[in-house]
Amino acid sequence: MTQINPETLTAALVRCASVTPDEGGALILLQDLLEDAGFICTRVDRGGVSNLFARWGDKGHPRTFGFNGHTDVVPLGDPADWTMPPFGAKVKDGFLYGRGATDMKSGVAAFAAAAVDFVRQTPPDGSIILTITGDEEGDAVDGTVALLDWMDKADEAMSVCLVGEPTCPDHMGQMMKIGRRGSLNAHVTVKGVQGHSAYPHRAINPLHALVRLMDRLASHELDTGTDHFDASTLAVVTIDTGNPATNVIPAEARATLNIRFNDAHSGASLSEWLREEAAKADAEFGTTTDLTIKISGESFLTPPGPLSDLVARAVEAETGTVPEASTTGGTSDARFVKNHCPVVEFGLVGRTMHQVDERVEVAQIHQLKRIYTRMLQDYFA
Amino acid sequence: MTQINPETLTAALVRCASVTPDEGGALILLQDLLEDAGFICTRVDRGGVSNLFARWGDKGHPRTFGFNGHTDVVPLGDPADWTMPPFGAKVKDGFLYGRGATDMKSGVAAFAAAAVDFVRQTPPDGSIILTITGDEEGDAVDGTVALLDWMDKADEAMSVCLVGEPTCPDHMGQMMKIGRRGSLNAHVTVKGVQGHSAYPHRAINPLHALVRLMDRLASHELDTGTDHFDASTLAVVTIDTGNPATNVIPAEARATLNIRFNDAHSGASLSEWLREEAAKADAEFGTTTDLTIKISGESFLTPPGPLSDLVARAVEAETGTVPEASTTGGTSDARFVKNHCPVVEFGLVGRTMHQVDERVEVAQIHQLKRIYTRMLQDYFA
Ligand SMILES: [Zn+2]
Ligand SMILES: [Zn+2]
Repeated sequence: MTQINPETLTAALVRCASVTPDEGGALILLQDLLEDAGFICTRVDRGGVSNLFARWGDKGHPRTFGFNGHTDVVPLGDPADWTMPPFGAKVKDGFLYGRGATDMKSGVAAFAAAAVDFVRQTPPDGSIILTITGDEEGDAVDGTVALLDWMDKADEAMSVCLVGEPTCPDHMGQMMKIGRRGSLNAHVTVKGVQGHSAYPHRAINPLHALVRLMDRLASHELDTGTDHFDASTLAVVTIDTGNPATNVIPAEARATLNIRFNDAHSGASLSEWLREEAAKADAEFGTTTDLTIKISGESFLTPPGPLSDLVARAVEAETGTVPEASTTGGTSDARFVKNHCPVVEFGLVGRTMHQVDERVEVAQIHQLKRIYTRMLQDYFA
Repeated sequence: MTQINPETLTAALVRCASVTPDEGGALILLQDLLEDAGFICTRVDRGGVSNLFARWGDKGHPRTFGFNGHTDVVPLGDPADWTMPPFGAKVKDGFLYGRGATDMKSGVAAFAAAAVDFVRQTPPDGSIILTITGDEEGDAVDGTVALLDWMDKADEAMSVCLVGEPTCPDHMGQMMKIGRRGSLNAHVTVKGVQGHSAYPHRAINPLHALVRLMDRLASHELDTGTDHFDASTLAVVTIDTGNPATNVIPAEARATLNIRFNDAHSGASLSEWLREEAAKADAEFGTTTDLTIKISGESFLTPPGPLSDLVARAVEAETGTVPEASTTGGTSDARFVKNHCPVVEFGLVGRTMHQVDERVEVAQIHQLKRIYTRMLQDYFA
């Protein structure tokens, strides 16, 4: 039986111009491939976004291995900056170039290739589900969430789920992700009373309150890390006033800060802390501080256990490296899947993701397919 | 002998559209008036700016009463916002309207009228010098400075000088100015290392250093005031970063602060303090802080003495109010004159200066002429 070549499949997917929210032919291509191998496919489109659900084996089987990934890609930036055609999938010096080459068409291709070969060659006693979204790089409200909503209604369920995002910072096999810190943005507006610089006692300078507040927040140690998480961090990312007049004390000043928080905190506990500190500064300075807090995601964790052990074994067998079980990095759709079943992320080296001349080492695509194949073999053994 | 009507003269000056650096006919009008009364006049124009020097009496007389003022005015803003013609000098309900009505064509008119009448009626044993500039509201580099430079070369000198700027905050006679605090602007640029908000330990956040530095500077008590000065003050007037990405720690952040300082400090001593504090923050945070310091003017003082006593007597006699000897307020050309001779500022209520519908109470123009006349009488008595 012919094996599916994950490099060829990655190239075919890269040639689909699937910048969020355009499907670009990528999901249709996968659906054809999977249906050929006996997967039952359903397009779960919502809000102008295309998503694909595919299951091999019985619905509701207690041993259902799930995969989550996305075929949408971020925009090109300035196409003129690319030295290779961004949807060309050209190979040069062992690298395949194109938008989505690492993030994450190669991951989707490697898993689809592994799954199709696996069910054809050694049909397991169990099921395999693929949830592929076209809205991971966008708002992510009608993507994996839509798939999980639909699955709930359709009584479809994964027992465990692997997310195929690139997870390795420098070399293959280095890292898997078993959770993430939460993320919160606070937009701070401090209102004072405008006045002349020469008479500050007649004004209330919002900047004086703002710098005190920001210094207190930035120098506060939120924690020193927990069992599976790095320490929580706070970064003031911008302060803006836009006052061109040196003889004028402005009426208002704005700041934005970002907090990455571990399981010692929640979005709610941090919001309360921020509000308390703002109220304290207001009391000291006579200002009025307005906080708009957006919680991008709470922290989550799939504690080390059977799933992470399975991933680690497969990675070590193919790469010789035991992957670190990390909770670092930005958000991914694992934050939605974690409400559904245990979830671990593992993929290739993502160094060029979102950049000009995004590319993937061709050898890594093949290696990734072998790793995913081992996971399936081990899971259904 | 006919007296010069200072209201008529103010109106004539207001009708000259003398927005800096346009002379607008104002100095020509004054020159005609003064020459008629026996003043020797010299136009001291420099760098596209017009200035008028006028002396009655002998050159180099040890009793030479000086006056300094300006005929240039600030722009109108939006002319459509004016309810009265800005160069119309219309009188309504006892107020004369127009740009420069208070700042300071009425002051120039009141002194010129007083001086002309005085030398005609009671020619003194002494001299009177008027230095009238057309560049007070602009850069002020070719205005009073040009006049004083010229006077040095021409061996012309004032024994004392009265500056006729509006000095009274609320009611006539309330305040004279015997000096000013100095003013300094510091433009602060903190450079760090850009990075991802999720990994602040790999970045150096310039904002964290900046808020610490600004909080320290703003909360530091420079002094509690000196004999003739209010306390020095520091105001952070703007902080700007312009970083739209909440997941990015910016490479650089900027702030500007303004210090108004009394005679307990100098521009140099404050610059040194700012540099020390910046270096301290840099050492703590690993940042590189760049300071661009502009000293607009050092503090200066004509200590209470014969000149301020003379001014106070004249003001009290005409208004019933002993004027406060103040050093508050923004800069004026007194900061140049103080290098030349003792200088005191006294003028009318300046509430509408630089505003739309600038206006002067007609009665105050006449009262100001009487006050200036008393000063001349007293000085030459
Ligand atoms: Zn991705
Ligand atoms: Zn003025």
